[in-house]
Amino acid sequence: MLTYSMDDRKNNSLYDYLYKCIKRDIMSGKLVSGQKLPSKRNFAKNLGVSVITIENAYSQLAAEGFIFSVEKKGYFVAKIGESVGKYAENITASDCGEDERTYNVNGNNQSCRKLSEQFAENEGTKKCAIESDVPTKIDFVSNIVNFDKFPFSTWSKLTREILSEQDEGLLRSAPVKGILELRQSIADYLYNFRGLNVTPERIVIGSGTEYLYGILVQLLGRDKIYAMEDPGYSKVMYVLNGNGVKCSPIPMDEYGMNIESLNESRADIVHLTPSHHFPTGIVMPIQRRLELLEWAYGKEDRYLIEDDYDCEFRLQGRPIQTMSEIDARGKVIYINTFSKTLAPSLRISYMVLPNELMDRFESMMGYMSCTVPNLEQYVLARFMGRGYFERHINRMRVFYRGIRDELLGGIKESNYGSKVKIMEENSGLHFLVKIRSNMSDEALVRRASACGLKIACLSDYEHTPNLSNRHVIIVNYSGMSSDNIPEAVKLLGEVIDN
Amino acid sequence: MLTYSMDDRKNNSLYDYLYKCIKRDIMSGKLVSGQKLPSKRNFAKNLGVSVITIENAYSQLAAEGFIFSVEKKGYFVAKIGESVGKYAENITASDCGEDERTYNVNGNNQSCRKLSEQFAENEGTKKCAIESDVPTKIDFVSNIVNFDKFPFSTWSKLTREILSEQDEGLLRSAPVKGILELRQSIADYLYNFRGLNVTPERIVIGSGTEYLYGILVQLLGRDKIYAMEDPGYSKVMYVLNGNGVKCSPIPMDEYGMNIESLNESRADIVHLTPSHHFPTGIVMPIQRRLELLEWAYGKEDRYLIEDDYDCEFRLQGRPIQTMSEIDARGKVIYINTFSKTLAPSLRISYMVLPNELMDRFESMMGYMSCTVPNLEQYVLARFMGRGYFERHINRMRVFYRGIRDELLGGIKESNYGSKVKIMEENSGLHFLVKIRSNMSDEALVRRASACGLKIACLSDYEHTPNLSNRHVIIVNYSGMSSDNIPEAVKLLGEVIDN
Repeated sequence: MLTYSMDDRKNNSLYDYLYKCIKRDIMSGKLVSGQKLPSKRNFAKNLGVSVITIENAYSQLAAEGFIFSVEKKGYFVAKIGESVGKYAENITASDCGEDERTYNVNGNNQSCRKLSEQFAENEGTKKCAIESDVPTKIDFVSNIVNFDKFPFSTWSKLTREILSEQDEGLLRSAPVKGILELRQSIADYLYNFRGLNVTPERIVIGSGTEYLYGILVQLLGRDKIYAMEDPGYSKVMYVLNGNGVKCSPIPMDEYGMNIESLNESRADIVHLTPSHHFPTGIVMPIQRRLELLEWAYGKEDRYLIEDDYDCEFRLQGRPIQTMSEIDARGKVIYINTFSKTLAPSLRISYMVLPNELMDRFESMMGYMSCTVPNLEQYVLARFMGRGYFERHINRMRVFYRGIRDELLGGIKESNYGSKVKIMEENSGLHFLVKIRSNMSDEALVRRASACGLKIACLSDYEHTPNLSNRHVIIVNYSGMSSDNIPEAVKLLGEVIDN
Repeated sequence: MLTYSMDDRKNNSLYDYLYKCIKRDIMSGKLVSGQKLPSKRNFAKNLGVSVITIENAYSQLAAEGFIFSVEKKGYFVAKIGESVGKYAENITASDCGEDERTYNVNGNNQSCRKLSEQFAENEGTKKCAIESDVPTKIDFVSNIVNFDKFPFSTWSKLTREILSEQDEGLLRSAPVKGILELRQSIADYLYNFRGLNVTPERIVIGSGTEYLYGILVQLLGRDKIYAMEDPGYSKVMYVLNGNGVKCSPIPMDEYGMNIESLNESRADIVHLTPSHHFPTGIVMPIQRRLELLEWAYGKEDRYLIEDDYDCEFRLQGRPIQTMSEIDARGKVIYINTFSKTLAPSLRISYMVLPNELMDRFESMMGYMSCTVPNLEQYVLARFMGRGYFERHINRMRVFYRGIRDELLGGIKESNYGSKVKIMEENSGLHFLVKIRSNMSDEALVRRASACGLKIACLSDYEHTPNLSNRHVIIVNYSGMSSDNIPEAVKLLGEVIDN
């Protein structure tokens, strides 16, 4: 039977170490496609760990697409692709880092699912802006940061502290990449939390991802075509279009952006949300990640933009591995924001550029100034450096997990609980509710609006209509609190129960 | 003799009121081109005011090009152009506003000057980056905000105050134009200080002018050609080029951008620094302003960008009138920054859009967020609203006037004082020193660098070489203090005295 010495795990938690060992053996080819993994009980006995440790490791591997489960038969190694060998070394090396952070695991993880197969429908709707005179009571659309949860006193304390030091650096124009202290804090964070080993020199800080996309367009060239996930987060496409570049929507399949469609397009750059696709919630499995990397390696000017917008809010298991980590040839641009973890009003985002692009950035943009005020940069650097950020995220994760559980519990116990299907509830701050309905999505949204419930459907984020995405309501619970959950459940019922 | 009732001046100072009355009569055609104005002494007697009041009003009118002086003969009304009538109403109307702010007047003002005639030279140099191993002792190139002068305690106090109020608005994503309170403060400021009557709805706040130029390119179209002053502030051209638009450098003459060259170009948009051209320091006279407006009115898609980057630091007379104020047809985009008045690290700039462009902005950019953090916006709004900003600017103006006077005094009293010519010392934070030399400008800059003196010459900002701009050193004294003036004067002497 498969055996690993659990004594070698250094600072890793048991389950995290096991997850990494199995992943390494799959990537190196030691465990081959189709091979059956030990049963949880036997494996636990053999390794001298608890069944829950095995369960958690298997869940994480399944979530990332390394293994799959067959009902009543167990777990099997997935087919990763022929080019695995090339990346194996890279993956193994970076996984040997001492990633000491662990995350609570609560329940089972989902494996890849086929949205398209699950709910084939045959109704088309048209997107339109829905307006209603009824005031919004519950908002399942907007990204709202819970006001009570913002660490105001700590933030104020650090702001006062930094202002009182009156360092000259507060007034001097910041270097275009941002203040070193903050870039160092972000590098440390990426290493500890995302397993990414990057130097501060590769990080660029900017006032919001919208701004950073503008910079990327300058770096990558305005003649490039950007492939966008369809359905997807339309704002990124607006920003790119506004910056004068062409976007090509590429349909999603059950694993993420469809590779064949991508190959048929004339795209040069691909924008992706692999950790947690918006709005479908798909976690891109390792196979598709490798295929996309392979695509990027095919031509010199090709790049992948990995938008890791809500990786901090995976509510179950460890955070999904980034594509940047398995990228062996500097083809992935990593981008993330503090808008969701702290507050959108802070306007601080960052990106990690591959070395080649960083050289280009330095020669093209060296004359510019960083767009984030120095004060905010110093405060955030200290906030991260002293561990407040990690504590805040952990607290928020617990809070949102509570909200999610209450909301799901409410829906399940409601009179419509048995008529709907909940999907993708383990990551980010939204889940999907698939309902049965004769109404168009547009009519659904309008009906909700008339009840004071602001919702959006998957179809609202489609470029090319896909019938299988009909009647899927996106429940973004970022602005919810325990108080308004009963009303939210009730209003949702009024919309669904028609 | 010309007579005005000084009792009607409301809140205006005597000289300001007189300046406005004469300007109104010139614009309306009541005072005609070539007409002689009363002598200062007689006019003062007639109006019952002091000679200095008349002197100040004449100086301001001369600085703006409404009148000109002939040695030993007095002041005459300038030829403004045939299209004056069209703008007269606009100018008069806006000047009836109760502009109660006045500014100390200290000495005489300069009328328009012909740089090109004054120092025709016949030597060409090439621009290059000058590097030296000698550490910089004095920097006459960089824009430096004097650290000691930043109102740290007030700023900290307001920051603490706003943080302690913990208003939810601090966390919510700001509307794309910026927070209303700050836009209102800026509108009040523009009215009181710049005589501009704009509503907060027309103001857009952004993190630096570099960012705002990117927005303007999106609004105006990436197919447009931008006319740039040559010589000029090269950074704006870099930013525009980076945003994918073509720039066309248009030569300056003694009044500003040459209209004939502009007409010959295929430019759609013109970038201007009319209040104080960088680097020559030219204040664009009213004639040229009207010609440029006339040019903009000639085609639908034409716009003028008025970059008012250092209007606050006119060290003599009242601030020069803006082009936005005399624009009758919504063709001027006004842009300004707090980088020079407060600190570059704040990253707060703003622009005022004509109504038509604002409509376009709202429909194109409505989905975006303002790039400046809310905290900074609230703090600055309160800083302005409570009068701190005005006081700070007045204090800085006095401070810089002192530095300028000490520096000029030092140069004049030095052994090379009689060999150089000082120009454009009344506005902004730099003046020009024209020297006699057999060296190339490049060699001059290198020689200075070897002495620890960082300088730039007019020719460094040229796109097309212009021989008449040779041997003109730009002395940017924004980073000077009384302590290092003697060394600065000494080092400058080492460079000049060859």
